[in-house]
Amino acid sequence: MTGQAPHRAVVIASGGLDSSTVAYWLADRGSQLTLLSFDYGQRHRKELHYAKRIAGHLGADHKVVDLSDLGRLLAGSALTDLGVQVPDGHYSEASMRSTVVPNRNTIMLSVAVAAAVSSGADAVAFGAHSGDHAIYPDCRTSFFDLFAAVTREGNEGFPTEGFELLAPFIGLTKADIVEVGRQVGVPFEDTWSCYKGGEVHCGVCGTCTERREAFEVAGVVDPTVYSTSVPAVAR
Amino acid sequence: MTGQAPHRAVVIASGGLDSSTVAYWLADRGSQLTLLSFDYGQRHRKELHYAKRIAGHLGADHKVVDLSDLGRLLAGSALTDLGVQVPDGHYSEASMRSTVVPNRNTIMLSVAVAAAVSSGADAVAFGAHSGDHAIYPDCRTSFFDLFAAVTREGNEGFPTEGFELLAPFIGLTKADIVEVGRQVGVPFEDTWSCYKGGEVHCGVCGTCTERREAFEVAGVVDPTVYSTSVPAVAR
Repeated sequence: MTGQAPHRAVVIASGGLDSSTVAYWLADRGSQLTLLSFDYGQRHRKELHYAKRIAGHLGADHKVVDLSDLGRLLAGSALTDLGVQVPDGHYSEASMRSTVVPNRNTIMLSVAVAAAVSSGADAVAFGAHSGDHAIYPDCRTSFFDLFAAVTREGNEGFPTEGFELLAPFIGLTKADIVEVGRQVGVPFEDTWSCYKGGEVHCGVCGTCTERREAFEVAGVVDPTVYSTSVPAVAR
Repeated sequence: MTGQAPHRAVVIASGGLDSSTVAYWLADRGSQLTLLSFDYGQRHRKELHYAKRIAGHLGADHKVVDLSDLGRLLAGSALTDLGVQVPDGHYSEASMRSTVVPNRNTIMLSVAVAAAVSSGADAVAFGAHSGDHAIYPDCRTSFFDLFAAVTREGNEGFPTEGFELLAPFIGLTKADIVEVGRQVGVPFEDTWSCYKGGEVHCGVCGTCTERREAFEVAGVVDPTVYSTSVPAVAR
């Protein structure tokens, strides 16, 4: 989380807490931003609206790339296949496996790099954090390092000099991110985490559980409206 | 080009000479195939019809992934931007630069890996050859090696054991591929190379020039109908 901020960055923006905080953090350091969201056939598109809202607050471009055709290809994931139930409760390897879209981060990063190369941005930024590591192999430093190497190899001469792949929160917990977000003024109420598509956050799915805990641990007031007022899973 | 053929492979299929020959070569060796084509906002979609035709001949699945939204993002390429003229003449670094879609192969390979992981295929196959190396950095062995490493890192535990990224023609010239194609019975007349979308191959764009030369050098009869009967560029 040190070093000079990029002049212009493409931020992969899900509308959630992590990527919204990456965007605010970069904007706070003076970067011009394009927020890039993906519609890959999610159960609901609520997160796209939240990403748009965050971009609006920041005066940043917001682009949505429709990859919904991928939904047809990626059978067996809870996020794209309506036949698979979204797991409740705490994140764990067993229950959250079904939320993994194969190769999702490689796909999103690849498209973000293309967008960056085309638009002259000198960085792609991504909101992975330490809590993602255990179940998402494509949220680890070793993965990002290799992906950065592939990007350099596959686009020789194309990216602007000093092109970077940024995962500034890779060493932080989600509670740390909430604290960073508080410092840079993220409007947490305009971020969306819940995997289900209700009016308000369900409060019991894996990401809701994780979100609640992050605010609690950080000691930051959680403005999120949850449909259940008491966490379903004891810690 | 040695070793055991994969049980089931996803072949990235453009409808052209190279990828069609990869498909026939794998089918000849007993692999079950899915041909995967991309619609990323090309000037014309003729190549998709040819890919479908090849899949039909082989009795293989054919899937088209619509990535046409990328066209909006990737301004400045002759293949997606109607404001840029398709260069005629022989391939060379200068004239063909405008045909490069940034990061295209990384994007296509990433999606193909997702399709392979989802469908239980044990390989992704790609038709890059030695003639692509000079202008397309993402057609080189060093790129494929790194991409294979990223795939392993990003999908730990997901791909079937022994998952492979195959670029069997990476060491061959296009003339060599024509010879391989002859041996495995590729219906060359049902492949499409031309970057322009005419009724028949134009005969003068970069890929037409390359295609003509490949048949000549290989000493194989070229069944292609070109709109110009004499090559426009002397060799």
